[in-house]
Formats: sequence, structure tokens, C-alpha cells
Amino acid sequence: MPRYRLIIEFDGAPFVGWQRQENGLSVQEAIETATLAFSGETTTAFAAGRTDAGVHALAMPVHFDLVRAFDDRTMRDAMNAHLRPAPIAVLAARRVDDAFHVRHSAVQRRYLYRIANRRAPPALDRGRVWHVAGALDIEAMAAAAADLLGKHDFTTFRAAQCQAASPVKTLSHLSVARENTEVLVRAAAPSFLHHQVRSIVGSLVQVGLGRWPASQLGAALRACDRAQCGPVAPADGLYFDGADYENSL
Amino acid sequence: MPRYRLIIEFDGAPFVGWQRQENGLSVQEAIETATLAFSGETTTAFAAGRTDAGVHALAMPVHFDLVRAFDDRTMRDAMNAHLRPAPIAVLAARRVDDAFHVRHSAVQRRYLYRIANRRAPPALDRGRVWHVAGALDIEAMAAAAADLLGKHDFTTFRAAQCQAASPVKTLSHLSVARENTEVLVRAAAPSFLHHQVRSIVGSLVQVGLGRWPASQLGAALRACDRAQCGPVAPADGLYFDGADYENSL
Repeated sequence: MPRYRLIIEFDGAPFVGWQRQENGLSVQEAIETATLAFSGETTTAFAAGRTDAGVHALAMPVHFDLVRAFDDRTMRDAMNAHLRPAPIAVLAARRVDDAFHVRHSAVQRRYLYRIANRRAPPALDRGRVWHVAGALDIEAMAAAAADLLGKHDFTTFRAAQCQAASPVKTLSHLSVARENTEVLVRAAAPSFLHHQVRSIVGSLVQVGLGRWPASQLGAALRACDRAQCGPVAPADGLYFDGADYENSL
Repeated sequence: MPRYRLIIEFDGAPFVGWQRQENGLSVQEAIETATLAFSGETTTAFAAGRTDAGVHALAMPVHFDLVRAFDDRTMRDAMNAHLRPAPIAVLAARRVDDAFHVRHSAVQRRYLYRIANRRAPPALDRGRVWHVAGALDIEAMAAAAADLLGKHDFTTFRAAQCQAASPVKTLSHLSVARENTEVLVRAAAPSFLHHQVRSIVGSLVQVGLGRWPASQLGAALRACDRAQCGPVAPADGLYFDGADYENSL
């Protein structure tokens, strides 16, 4: 049975998140509905990351199986035609080996978090960034971020409802950079806990605003105590930025 | 009477354009309503450029007069508070000499036009870009653009309803560049005709798609014939990017 891998971009605002839920439209349901409309086949779609409500994607790998064979261009263009008017775009489609699994085969996931760091609220980027009006000290944030790199118990930065078997994760990348009035936080890891990126970003902002000394981020990590976490950053600024695979698929 | 100059950013989608109109909310009306709410004074707001419905602004200079004196920070923050929830943000506010006029004193206006040049429709940038699915030849567009620089009769690139006294304008800058999957067109001139940028971009895209040879843009200009213009590009991708003043205000 042919397996198809898509790379999709989506605006998370109107969705309840990636996963199917009773209480509203999910990205998964929108993908499965478009697939049914174009192919006549009912399928289950899998994603590299199960994003929450309001979280966006710049490049989310997705896969599903269909009985019929379609060429890559037909798949991409037909899906885009049937996804309208949902704010989901198929950037690429490719037939893959059925040993490939978009979630199980991923060796790394990447996230981008956008902070609008200026006095004025965002007008053009409303819903796309977290607005932090106070000046952020990027050097302090970068210094604090370094303390989280590597393998740690991330209990402090884990949502109460997180279903992961273990709170131990390996953060392979965490950077803070300024681009004009935006502060960009990038994170990469083989896998993440629920709300881990937003919990880290919220705590980093405490450091950036000078409410926490830079050393407090590492101390909060070592405490393994959810109460030591800063306010969780909103979904608006979070983007799933891609997943990496060993075979570079 | 104190005069205040603001620099505003706005999402043009919900507005009928800058200028007050009977048929819907304008940016001008939103500014004047916020000013009245915060100061209790009725005033008339002027802008450096009178943008059309749907056209955005990254940095639009605006001015108005009030009887009362406010410091710059209070003006900026109070306007932002009273503009909510309209997608208009005051980036900066400054008290200026009353010899300064945001429209009459401007020596140059700048526009940016964003084209999403990829097969997939925009999901995150919907309403913010013009989607052109066919591959654009940037070199051909840049070569064609060079023919429009300088002082010319721009009748070909002028809307029928344009009220300018003369079709002769001086285009001081017109560039075409690619940034990943986006093609950015930048234009600058002391002043523009109605729909001039969108008419030029629409015609440039004909060149980029290979439907017109690069030489046809200059030929269309020299014809001074509106019928020689390509399809006018949509408002979605157009941004007023700033105005320049001699005293660098």
C-alpha cells in the first residue's frame, strides 16, 4: 500500500491542534477530509509532532497510506486544492517506503519561537508572535539558555498533563537571537515534553526582563519542580519548524 | 497648537483604505476615533500616503494637531491602548513643528511588494502576499525594471480613476530580489500615481513568467497606453514601507 509523506505549513489559530478531538477542527481531521475528498479513501494521518491548539507549523512532516498510487505532483496539488479554505498548505509530497514513519523515524524535532519585543503591539503579526513590551537582554537569555543544553530531567518545564514516560530529554540546541524588533528562540531535540518549549521560553523571558538572574534558569531546571517554572509562553509565537531523519528524507 | 507625528503599522485587510469613506471603516477614522477617545479632542489626521483598501503599512507617517500638549511616550502608549482591537499599532510618536506636514513635506515614498512564488498557496501569509505559482525569472524582471527608472509619463501604469494633475513621475528606485520562496519588489519615488506600484508589479510578473519579453515593459511605458499594462497586482502584497523627509524627521 503506497505511503505518502507531505511537508505542510499551517496557521494554528483556527485549529484545536494537530490531533483529532471532539471539541473542534484539528489539522489531522482537515488533512484526512481532504485526502478522502480527492482519493475516495479513508486514511489515518500521522505527524512528526502533535502540536497544541494555536501552534503553527512552517514545515510539519505528515504521512498516510492509500491503496491507489499517485505521483508526487498530483498528490501535492490535489491536496492543496481540497484543503481550501483551511489555512494549511502542502509544500511538498513524496511517495516513501512503508518502513518510514514520520513520528517514529524522526531523529530530531525543531521549533522556532517568535517574540515581538517592542512597545507597540503587533498589527501585521497579531496571533503570530508573543508581544513582550519590556526590553529583553539577549545576552542574559543566551547565557541562561546554555545551562539547559544536554540531557536533563526537565520536570520543571513539563506540563502537568504531559503523558511522556520519562521527564528526561536531551536538548541539542537552544539559541536566542535578535532580528530588528523580534527575538527568536530556536530549540531542537530528539523529542520534547508537553509545553516544554513554551515553558522554557516563558522562563527565558523572565531572565530577559531582568526579573530572574541568568543563573536562575539552570537552578529551576535542577530543582525538578514545576513550581519553579516561569509563566508559560502563549501558543501564538510557537512554530514547528521541521523534523530531521537519518536518511535525510 | 501642538502637532504630533506618529509612525503607524497596520494590516490593511479590514479597512476601506486610509481615507474616510461612507462605505466602511478607514484607517483615518480609526486614528481620529482613538485620538478623540484619549484626548477628548476632534482632529483631522493626515498620512504620507493615501493607501487603497487592503494595502498594508509597515511605517506610515501620520500627523494631527491637538490643543493639549502630551509627551511622546504618553501619546504613543495612549493611542495604542485606544486603537484596540483595530490592527493598527503606533510604533513611534513625536511632537513636531507645525511647519512640518506629513504629506507635503515628504520628499520620497517607499513601497514593498511581496510575492509568494511557490506551488503551494500561502497558509501563514494569507492576505499578506500575492501568490504566483509559476516560477519567476528574477533576472528578466530586474532587467525590465531598469527601463522604468527615472522621469517618465507613466500613463500606462495609472488607474483610470487617478486624480493626479500629471502622469509624469520620477521613479527613483525599483528592485526585484528573491528571499527563499518570496520575490520582493521595492519601489521609491517622490510621489506615485494611483495603482502605479500594483500596475508595475503586475506587468513585471508577466515578464517573470516569460509571457512578456523583458523589453516589453519599457515598450509598454513608452506607449503611454493603459491597455498596454499587465493585470494589476492585488492589494494583499502591497506595503507602504516609509516616507523620507529632508530634515530626517
